[in-house]
Amino acid sequence: MRPPATQRTLRRQNLGTVLQHVVRRGPRSRATIAQETGFNKSTVSSLVTELIEMGMLAERGAERTGTVGRPGLVVEVEGSGAAGVGLEVNVDYLAVRVVDLAGEVRHRAHEPVDLRGRDAGEMLDRLAAMAQAALGALREAGVRPAGITVALPGLVDAVTGTLLVAPNLHWEDLPVAAELGRRLGPDAPPIAADNDANLAALAELRTGAGEGLRDFVHVTGEVGIGAGVVLGGELLRGAHGYGGEFGHLTVEPTGRRCACGSVGCLETRAGLDALLSAAEESTEGADQQPVERLAARADAGDEKARAALAEGGRWLGIALASAANLLDPEAFVLGGYFAPLAEHLAPAAEAELRLRVLGAGRGLPALLTSPMGAEAAVCGAAGEVIERVMADPASVAGGPHYTS
Amino acid sequence: MRPPATQRTLRRQNLGTVLQHVVRRGPRSRATIAQETGFNKSTVSSLVTELIEMGMLAERGAERTGTVGRPGLVVEVEGSGAAGVGLEVNVDYLAVRVVDLAGEVRHRAHEPVDLRGRDAGEMLDRLAAMAQAALGALREAGVRPAGITVALPGLVDAVTGTLLVAPNLHWEDLPVAAELGRRLGPDAPPIAADNDANLAALAELRTGAGEGLRDFVHVTGEVGIGAGVVLGGELLRGAHGYGGEFGHLTVEPTGRRCACGSVGCLETRAGLDALLSAAEESTEGADQQPVERLAARADAGDEKARAALAEGGRWLGIALASAANLLDPEAFVLGGYFAPLAEHLAPAAEAELRLRVLGAGRGLPALLTSPMGAEAAVCGAAGEVIERVMADPASVAGGPHYTS
Repeated sequence: MRPPATQRTLRRQNLGTVLQHVVRRGPRSRATIAQETGFNKSTVSSLVTELIEMGMLAERGAERTGTVGRPGLVVEVEGSGAAGVGLEVNVDYLAVRVVDLAGEVRHRAHEPVDLRGRDAGEMLDRLAAMAQAALGALREAGVRPAGITVALPGLVDAVTGTLLVAPNLHWEDLPVAAELGRRLGPDAPPIAADNDANLAALAELRTGAGEGLRDFVHVTGEVGIGAGVVLGGELLRGAHGYGGEFGHLTVEPTGRRCACGSVGCLETRAGLDALLSAAEESTEGADQQPVERLAARADAGDEKARAALAEGGRWLGIALASAANLLDPEAFVLGGYFAPLAEHLAPAAEAELRLRVLGAGRGLPALLTSPMGAEAAVCGAAGEVIERVMADPASVAGGPHYTS
Repeated sequence: MRPPATQRTLRRQNLGTVLQHVVRRGPRSRATIAQETGFNKSTVSSLVTELIEMGMLAERGAERTGTVGRPGLVVEVEGSGAAGVGLEVNVDYLAVRVVDLAGEVRHRAHEPVDLRGRDAGEMLDRLAAMAQAALGALREAGVRPAGITVALPGLVDAVTGTLLVAPNLHWEDLPVAAELGRRLGPDAPPIAADNDANLAALAELRTGAGEGLRDFVHVTGEVGIGAGVVLGGELLRGAHGYGGEFGHLTVEPTGRRCACGSVGCLETRAGLDALLSAAEESTEGADQQPVERLAARADAGDEKARAALAEGGRWLGIALASAANLLDPEAFVLGGYFAPLAEHLAPAAEAELRLRVLGAGRGLPALLTSPMGAEAAVCGAAGEVIERVMADPASVAGGPHYTS
């Protein structure tokens, strides 16, 4: 239930409305903001003044109105007012990306590392070091860090920031947000964690292939295969905050043993290891390199590479068809390593959709390729922080009026 | 987008709020209604008076308050104010059930008939005759018919009331609502149509096994297998109004040919024909009779019956596990012919869930049995009409103030 709106909560909400308006629509005068949002001019002026004091908006230059007369001042986003730190833990790399309120990338890093069989504490140390470097870069640039979100490859309790289980890493019940907080110390901004496929789907929804769609499934191949299910423009969270475990849909009930303990999961047939092994492609090199080599071989007409991808696409299509029969989405977005391989996977996957989706003759879900590929999760993690800032700028800026 | 609220739309909405309150909470005084809804007493009095004029509420008896003083009059639902006619077309029967505003069943009928290979026109004639009988019974009892909803076994365009495709009947693009309207004439109440599994899930959500749940999948076996997916307390409609085609999830990619044209659908293994044939049970007799015979044999320890149901439960569990991995529901509700067979299907299905659901150790979705069984769809169809009446009583009662 929504808490009762007091004058203070209403004011905080209105600050968010004005900030979002300028972030999404670009620089404009106070008068234009008033006209477009429906607030009266004096309310806009006071909200803008407060956002300028918070360092999230700035008043510069002049608006070209095309009419005669004195040009008015325009209000624009002050990127340094807030930045979101996105971290990503994957099976074979760690990544960080920092995005500011204006959408500028302020810092990024990517460390290939094979985490299979590694100690979780070692990973947390390295992640903390990456976060420290990002926070240091922000301090140096005079940008306010508004929060940290960590994308994790498994079931995550987003409320406590705990990784519950990561089948490909054999970690369980790892309080990632709390452990990271302990390493970063009391001055660190708030830390959250979420499932990587969920964050990737949110990134696609905001600025990727899912922009403008209301019902889609973002299927992302990393080492495992996850999905973010967006229904009615909202991410499906499920009863316990799980859901979207697309790689563990059964496609072959008596098939191969999966790392999760089950049998015949999609991952055993279309997971990265399965694809590389079917194509006799080496797993040597940093994370995306084997995928790039496999894509290059298939592009060049290599029969073994093409057959392996067609077979992987067939299994992927079987699972997509089941999701289509259950959910009736507008589209599937292929992300992660599926993105660079999409043109070789799609024909076989589409053939399965045509065969298996009830009412396929009336049109099938579109099969789209993610423009973000493997970067969607870390973008989504940084983006989550920015979304929270835009929903309630005062929560970040603090100050005597807004301590809650 | 919601249309702007005018005084008239607000008044209509408030009439619905008061009517729903009395329907759901039972007889009570105007003062109690005012206290519980937050409307002031004079508003409640005027709304109640109008609902009495519409024939949907009545003022009778006295409320026992337990305190000294004159007992006040209480307001209660007037069942005859509106009734919903639910019709159901299934592969092997037609059914009708009429429920009034007070929840009383006013009329019911059930006609076994094998519609496979039959002409759709013949079915529509029989359905129209059943509807006429229901409307005649209401006329005689002085009850206002508020609408007709038809439950159909296939993909339905609920906006136009058209059956798009029914795989087990080989009917396509059948404008059921319009055809029924033509047969019933201009005096018939408004006619709608929807998918039977959707309507069954809505019935379970309102008064069945799904009451109080927010995320569940109602899996219903008729001849085909459908599902109604409820997420966040709302029925999932999907991008095109389909979704929930649970019987066509692939469980065995190179398995048996399905009536839908695909291969290895759940229906080929856990559909009614598959179960009866595996148990060597005859399909003779009216609709539920073969199921009852099969259940009786399994109860009595018949090995072939038990083995067939265990095998069917295994395939059912494989599909349930995929839905659980994708959607993370609180529960599955087994309805239709799965309900009387549930105790024999459930152990094998649960074993598959334990094997195949990621994070199964943290708890699995509950496997519930529908208390409505095969009657859920026709109950849900009648209930849809009553829901519409409660949302906007004036839409039914008509009158000079509310013609729109």
